[in-house]
Amino acid sequence: MEIVAGIDIGGTKTKIGLVNKSGECLVKTNFRTKEYPDLEKYLDKVKLSIDELTEKLSSDMDLLGIGIGAPNASSRLGTIEHASNLLWKGTVPLVAKLRERIDVPIKITNDANVAAIGEMLFGNAKGMSDFVVITLGTGLGSGIVSNGKLVDGYDGFAGELGHFAIMPEDGRMTGLQVKGGLEAYVSATGLKRTVLYMLSKYMEDSRFRNIAFNDLHGEEITQAAEEGDFIALKTYEYTGEILGKALANFTTFSQPEAFFLVGGLALSGKWIFDPAKKHMEENLLQVYKGKVKLLPSGMLNKTAAVSGAAALIWSDFT
Amino acid sequence: MEIVAGIDIGGTKTKIGLVNKSGECLVKTNFRTKEYPDLEKYLDKVKLSIDELTEKLSSDMDLLGIGIGAPNASSRLGTIEHASNLLWKGTVPLVAKLRERIDVPIKITNDANVAAIGEMLFGNAKGMSDFVVITLGTGLGSGIVSNGKLVDGYDGFAGELGHFAIMPEDGRMTGLQVKGGLEAYVSATGLKRTVLYMLSKYMEDSRFRNIAFNDLHGEEITQAAEEGDFIALKTYEYTGEILGKALANFTTFSQPEAFFLVGGLALSGKWIFDPAKKHMEENLLQVYKGKVKLLPSGMLNKTAAVSGAAALIWSDFT
Repeated sequence: MEIVAGIDIGGTKTKIGLVNKSGECLVKTNFRTKEYPDLEKYLDKVKLSIDELTEKLSSDMDLLGIGIGAPNASSRLGTIEHASNLLWKGTVPLVAKLRERIDVPIKITNDANVAAIGEMLFGNAKGMSDFVVITLGTGLGSGIVSNGKLVDGYDGFAGELGHFAIMPEDGRMTGLQVKGGLEAYVSATGLKRTVLYMLSKYMEDSRFRNIAFNDLHGEEITQAAEEGDFIALKTYEYTGEILGKALANFTTFSQPEAFFLVGGLALSGKWIFDPAKKHMEENLLQVYKGKVKLLPSGMLNKTAAVSGAAALIWSDFT
Repeated sequence: MEIVAGIDIGGTKTKIGLVNKSGECLVKTNFRTKEYPDLEKYLDKVKLSIDELTEKLSSDMDLLGIGIGAPNASSRLGTIEHASNLLWKGTVPLVAKLRERIDVPIKITNDANVAAIGEMLFGNAKGMSDFVVITLGTGLGSGIVSNGKLVDGYDGFAGELGHFAIMPEDGRMTGLQVKGGLEAYVSATGLKRTVLYMLSKYMEDSRFRNIAFNDLHGEEITQAAEEGDFIALKTYEYTGEILGKALANFTTFSQPEAFFLVGGLALSGKWIFDPAKKHMEENLLQVYKGKVKLLPSGMLNKTAAVSGAAALIWSDFT
């Protein structure tokens, strides 16, 4: 049986799974990334984990390759560069060093690109050759597919739409000091910042008048919206409007068939999708109107990151 | 000898040439587009022109195909749609109807995409697989190349960066009613609008206090800048700053190796390139700094549009 290993390198956990051609993760394991501050020992642990997983499968296995999703990864160079939530500093030649241990094709790219390739092979973007995946976590990531291929850019760092300055004049600062960067508005953190902004702007009562910024959680904002909390409703309207206008603008670049929203904020469903759809459609150029879809991910299961990483390799075999 | 016909359909003139593998236009002709309001008669004239050009060449010719650049062209559908400066209204199935007359591969795309493919095959983007061409004429067009292929989009209308709303809050209106659209600032028309804006903002004397908007021309603004005219200098600084910031933002999308500036405004040289380079570099994310070039076109000759159109076909044979 042919199989691909998918690896999701996160600041907290490293998840590894063996994934078949349909995107199903047959066996999986994980360990704590931070227990391996030494890169060589980390990669030994990765090799050991893959060997152990292989043995668990009864039938004979042909490991076609290894796909890896990681923060700040360069697909072109096979490196991780200056990832703030990982212990290895500087430029880490991860692909080259893993290949010394396992001699199969190895590919790496960032989390949002993994989400895009996973969506194309195994999710809701099947059959599409032009689409964009927007990942909404602490920040905002993006994976762009054009002509059926990932848009990598000159050295593999394309698709950083979270840092597009959409409010250049009086905008919020992002963590990378981009004034008015999109992720300062549209992300879990952006949503919380907007709750504060709305509390400052309006006098209406709200449950959020009793909660400090650091105690705020996205799920609670969704729940408050369900209950009709004025500030929560204003917060989602504002966030969806900014997202919708940004997507309309991004359409002038690659004219995607669809945008997919992935991650925590996307799970709030209609609260983000409805205003985003409305303002996207209103702001699209005439030639694009009615042609751009805004869709949820088709990878809403626990192994999305691992299956997506494996898709980096599977996409070369289909 | 193998040859490709390149056609540049403009509102005023239609230019046709036979182009060899090196991008040289061996023979050419042109006629007035507006003399053929009937599409069928226009296409008969196109066929006749190609036949006449073919006869002019002494050696035996193998016509590999026809490449066409036209406003509002969809590469995916082979159509021209709602082009405001052409007489044929609605959706024009140009490729299908021309193929009834000449049975060779025929491709069409818009002017900016033609510029991009021409630059890649015959100009300064040779060997690059990720770059963006910005055409600065009456408006602003763009042709985006990623992974060595034109970014077409879902139905062939990608790359409309002139309509990206870069000043959403108190911006100028474009001809398509986009508030704060880039081409309202960065284009021949945008430059003239900025002259008026600077005349309104400052009290300094300027030759432009004696010239009406409709009498203003780009070359004169460049000449005034050379002579140290305060308003002209402010105008170029402002235009270059807006362009530079926009290019820094666009880099988050496809991380091009280079942006190329093409067309009238690009001919003003340092007046637009210097401030644009400065503000692009200042506003690039750390991961992109020092990696993005801003370059002039390598297609600065009269047959650029015809050779670029032919490159649509030649790119399939190289």
